[in-house]
Amino acid sequence: MKPIYWDNGIVKLLDQRLLPDKEVYVEVKSVKEMANALREMRIRGAPNVGIAGAYGIVLGIWNYFGSVGDLPEVYHSWCEWLQKARPTAYNLARALSLFRPLFQPENLSSTSLSELKEQSLYIAHGLVQAEESACERIGTHGERLIPPRGRILTLCNTGSLAAYGIGTALGIIRKAHQARKNIFVWVMETRPWLQGARLTAWELQQDKIPFRLIVDSVAGQLFREKQVDLVLVGADRIAHNGDTANKIGTYPLAILAHYHDIPFYVAAPRSTFETTRHDGSHIPIEERPEEEVLTFHGIAVAPPQTRAYNPVFDITPAYLITAFITDTGVYSPSQIPAL
Amino acid sequence: MKPIYWDNGIVKLLDQRLLPDKEVYVEVKSVKEMANALREMRIRGAPNVGIAGAYGIVLGIWNYFGSVGDLPEVYHSWCEWLQKARPTAYNLARALSLFRPLFQPENLSSTSLSELKEQSLYIAHGLVQAEESACERIGTHGERLIPPRGRILTLCNTGSLAAYGIGTALGIIRKAHQARKNIFVWVMETRPWLQGARLTAWELQQDKIPFRLIVDSVAGQLFREKQVDLVLVGADRIAHNGDTANKIGTYPLAILAHYHDIPFYVAAPRSTFETTRHDGSHIPIEERPEEEVLTFHGIAVAPPQTRAYNPVFDITPAYLITAFITDTGVYSPSQIPAL
Repeated sequence: MKPIYWDNGIVKLLDQRLLPDKEVYVEVKSVKEMANALREMRIRGAPNVGIAGAYGIVLGIWNYFGSVGDLPEVYHSWCEWLQKARPTAYNLARALSLFRPLFQPENLSSTSLSELKEQSLYIAHGLVQAEESACERIGTHGERLIPPRGRILTLCNTGSLAAYGIGTALGIIRKAHQARKNIFVWVMETRPWLQGARLTAWELQQDKIPFRLIVDSVAGQLFREKQVDLVLVGADRIAHNGDTANKIGTYPLAILAHYHDIPFYVAAPRSTFETTRHDGSHIPIEERPEEEVLTFHGIAVAPPQTRAYNPVFDITPAYLITAFITDTGVYSPSQIPAL
Repeated sequence: MKPIYWDNGIVKLLDQRLLPDKEVYVEVKSVKEMANALREMRIRGAPNVGIAGAYGIVLGIWNYFGSVGDLPEVYHSWCEWLQKARPTAYNLARALSLFRPLFQPENLSSTSLSELKEQSLYIAHGLVQAEESACERIGTHGERLIPPRGRILTLCNTGSLAAYGIGTALGIIRKAHQARKNIFVWVMETRPWLQGARLTAWELQQDKIPFRLIVDSVAGQLFREKQVDLVLVGADRIAHNGDTANKIGTYPLAILAHYHDIPFYVAAPRSTFETTRHDGSHIPIEERPEEEVLTFHGIAVAPPQTRAYNPVFDITPAYLITAFITDTGVYSPSQIPAL
């Protein structure tokens, strides 16, 4: 089941807001619709957010009937709309920048609109293939770090719904399961959006990988009870020094793992590494609507007029991370700047 | 609005499962009904669980028509039913034991059933008064620790719904607010039961104390952003050495506070201190139904057949606690054994 695919001028998205209750594909027909779909988290997960952004640009050019000369400026606004929808995701920034050569005046002067359509589609398709094979390689490198009967704690969703193919952290879990290591997974529910409860549980169930769901606050107690052998999480943006933006809750989890001397691994493709950003101190942290905290399925959780604070990412300093598992190998934080 | 009161042979409970949507009192007429109400968390919070247990015993004796000679054994089974409903709560164990002298054969041989009814009711009423005034004193002692414009992080509900009167940790917050210290409260929603979102938000709103609600995973990020000056939590059971059982999530919060050098205070009446228990290693940890994690308002959160692990308390070692704020004063962990 693909999280996103191109279907003859239209992009189809498996609507992750409705999972696991309903498996519904929605049609996205324009850049603005794609920006909305991203903002509404119909598609999510760092690598897939990048792929969605790429197809957003493809939709832009496929539905473009203006002058070719205006395209550099138009491309710039497409990028703005899309990036603003999920500001923390570096895969999105990087995916959008893949199209930059196409929209250079030098290229535009010698290229027809139909050639641009074809080229943009190839870029997006190529990105899908690259991300899919990156996950395979992350899985292969990471699987070696999983001990037999390893009990893995994971946060959010880093599987096929987040990253195409087998996923990043969840791809490693899949590979370890396929290698018959008798692993067990603790799934943090991941408030407020419940990606763990709704999406990771759904993926693990389909692959018959044993797991239990916990509320996010249980992680400390599990560490104390020595019920966890390692932590595996994904990443939304990794700075030059290894500081890592990921789902809110990653930073406290890394501190808890450190405190209990449990290995803490970040799994991410090289496309998540922002080599030009020195460290994590200025990574933009997306704040999402308060309603995500205040309501559930439209039902109020808190009294009327309650205000919430809803940052959906946090920054984990590199020194709390045992190693980065990427498509090109496993690296300690000190090796990241040299990559 | 009282969380529990005696009304002519019946106990009335403000049903905390329905707050903040509905303010409904339910009637409890027997020991078994009280055990069920405790298990279903119609009433909750360490001190109030003790009070509910005490009125449970009163209901037992008020509805008793057997022989006085059987009462020691009958009392023993009442205690068992009630304590099993919330095994971690020490206030419950302590409240139940207050009735022990009444049910000694020596006392029973010289006391009529109507005298027993009266005496048991006095014990329960006395406990309410003692807990209420303990909260007042906790508030007075604790208020001195709150700096002007202090930003306080709190977990679960420790207010009038948990502890009669002004509450424990929330009682301190109330006193600081009354002292016009311009405080601000970060309220952790407290999954799975959402005591923070549903109950603490409701109490703070009624007292016009400024606050914002966060999902539990945001605490780490708030510490990192230096948005918290101190942490205030309650307790369900405190061992001789100061190890503290409290709402799941307290232990990781204490580690995070320690890591960021933020004071971490436990507020609890002396009735929460179990002086005969050496340390926290064998405190019974209540596990509650998986449905609390898997559903919300009857709506499934995770796919069908998902299993959850739902321990609702954890143990915070004494060395992670800056000080204990009790009705007799403020104590460092090293002072606790001498109390």
